[in-house]
Amino acid sequence: MRTLKVELSDRSYPIHIGSNLLEKAELILPALPQRKAAIVTNMTVAPLYLDRLRNALEKQGIESIAVILPDGEQHKNWETLNLIYDALLENRCERNTAIVALGGGVIGDISGFAAATYLRGVPFIQIPTTLLAQVDSSVGGKTAINHPLGKNMIGAFYQPRLVLTDIDTLNTLPERELKAGIAEVIKYGLIRDLPFFVWLEENIDKLKARDPEALGYAISRSCENKAEVVARDEKETGERALLNLGHTFGHAIENAMGYGNWLHGEAVAAGTILAARLSRVLGMLSEDDVKRIVSLFERAGLPVQAPEIGLERYLQLMELDKKVEEGKMRFVVLDAIGRACVRSDISREALSKVLGSDA
Amino acid sequence: MRTLKVELSDRSYPIHIGSNLLEKAELILPALPQRKAAIVTNMTVAPLYLDRLRNALEKQGIESIAVILPDGEQHKNWETLNLIYDALLENRCERNTAIVALGGGVIGDISGFAAATYLRGVPFIQIPTTLLAQVDSSVGGKTAINHPLGKNMIGAFYQPRLVLTDIDTLNTLPERELKAGIAEVIKYGLIRDLPFFVWLEENIDKLKARDPEALGYAISRSCENKAEVVARDEKETGERALLNLGHTFGHAIENAMGYGNWLHGEAVAAGTILAARLSRVLGMLSEDDVKRIVSLFERAGLPVQAPEIGLERYLQLMELDKKVEEGKMRFVVLDAIGRACVRSDISREALSKVLGSDA
Repeated sequence: MRTLKVELSDRSYPIHIGSNLLEKAELILPALPQRKAAIVTNMTVAPLYLDRLRNALEKQGIESIAVILPDGEQHKNWETLNLIYDALLENRCERNTAIVALGGGVIGDISGFAAATYLRGVPFIQIPTTLLAQVDSSVGGKTAINHPLGKNMIGAFYQPRLVLTDIDTLNTLPERELKAGIAEVIKYGLIRDLPFFVWLEENIDKLKARDPEALGYAISRSCENKAEVVARDEKETGERALLNLGHTFGHAIENAMGYGNWLHGEAVAAGTILAARLSRVLGMLSEDDVKRIVSLFERAGLPVQAPEIGLERYLQLMELDKKVEEGKMRFVVLDAIGRACVRSDISREALSKVLGSDA
Repeated sequence: MRTLKVELSDRSYPIHIGSNLLEKAELILPALPQRKAAIVTNMTVAPLYLDRLRNALEKQGIESIAVILPDGEQHKNWETLNLIYDALLENRCERNTAIVALGGGVIGDISGFAAATYLRGVPFIQIPTTLLAQVDSSVGGKTAINHPLGKNMIGAFYQPRLVLTDIDTLNTLPERELKAGIAEVIKYGLIRDLPFFVWLEENIDKLKARDPEALGYAISRSCENKAEVVARDEKETGERALLNLGHTFGHAIENAMGYGNWLHGEAVAAGTILAARLSRVLGMLSEDDVKRIVSLFERAGLPVQAPEIGLERYLQLMELDKKVEEGKMRFVVLDAIGRACVRSDISREALSKVLGSDA
């Protein structure tokens, strides 16, 4: 087991990464202020891991209630959030009752937002069971639900007290979701870690084959990168925005195609290729760089071609992005492989070169 | 104009209290990161003060949009919150667009929660127009909406960047609401400020007559008390709970009678008398103390008799209170006039003596 730490003064917290950690409920105890916890999970994860976690907690004397939600990004909304609130209230959960997210990014985001807002905030613990959640969404305290007009529009910055990453849970992860998680892993290489990008070029096949050692390394290295960025810029006033490489395009794709049809990681993959092409149009990347990036995503089995929904529709959806400032859209682009920056001076012409003209 | 400060290190903020401040939009400017703001108000306050505020802002070069909500505690819910989100999204409000609450406690609570959660948090400004909001709810960063199972169950701690209290707005406040606000003013005397309680005994008639000097003093003194408590215990892990004197009973009353039928301040008044009687049962207050407290609330024109809904119903509603810890209800009681404490060892027998037996 490796343990990293997210340094946020009095809100610092550990990330434990290893095998068979679901059985090791003693790791969770320090984050539980009372002998009761509410586990939020979904209908896919519950049959696989819920009993194992509850039994492990019970052995430590922790009573738990379970809230089982429908699975999928399309359920990351107010109605589902209310199912959590209702269960917490009906089960008399208190300010000291921790909420434990057991699942992927959707479960982490929505139950984190529930934890941030139930009784004005209760303790929160992340047990991510997808690669995407393990390398990205479980770390850093972004919580949210979607609004019909845009993804993650309603949310809060609310840090967990602990992240427990059991790599074994990836054994049951569908192939498509594994690949979607790899998109966020590649992201860290692209924005700030060239040696990791090179490592990924050499080890992408091992990751796809779920080699435990390769997965453990990729998860730790991703979390190290994320923890460093979050420690320096928790509320995304600067550097943290770089973690959104491909996300402005990606959110537009997810929204346009209907939440849940493209997985988040798939949309980020296609969005990252758009960001790379935009960087090329701006003269920041070479054609060889772009080819190298496309090639890695292709080898990961991820979509490298964004859907053709027309320039106007893209612009309309991206104007809703949270990074818009004084009406200007801001894009994360690449200076080089391993170095990203934010630009707000992107012309419509430049965008039309990567998004195509109107249908 | 007097200016107080709530000391919360990098989130400290000023409270300006005075006459004709709605015209002085230059006071708001330092809290606005961009030249656009979203004003949230209600159908009662809008015809009185919205144009005045918007014109004052416009003179300072600030464009504003207005979100006008239905009036009343019964609208402090998710549906109304969504009206705010919809308007913010439709008007392309960004992370730097401040939300300005213009109204009473309901407007402050719901728009504060919108500010805490829209795009994971945007700048927030309070312009309270009721006495209750001016002396209590606009200061300290508690935001919330109600859940069908309990008041303020969903919310966040989210501090404003500025509180602008224009005493002149009290001239249009209905008599009943003025009195409801006085309940929270008396609270500060009871829990931590005996000299202020004595001042209130001497000046209660001036307050009811809206004497501007008396109102200005009562508002400033209340805010000083609140600011001190909040600075020491922002998230209510200790001392801040004392500000909830009468509120555990009061919330049960509001809920039982249907939100909006008893005003919050009225329920707090009756709840405070219950807390005083409970303190008497516990041998902490003398009968004379209780009479003195009842007398001041009576002179303020506030209800001193709680509705008789039966012990079981009270217990059931109070079990939902946010202050419940390890299944134990916690009550704010009075050691003396001017000194409060929290007790979690209150027997059912003691409660039955003040809440009556079952119907």
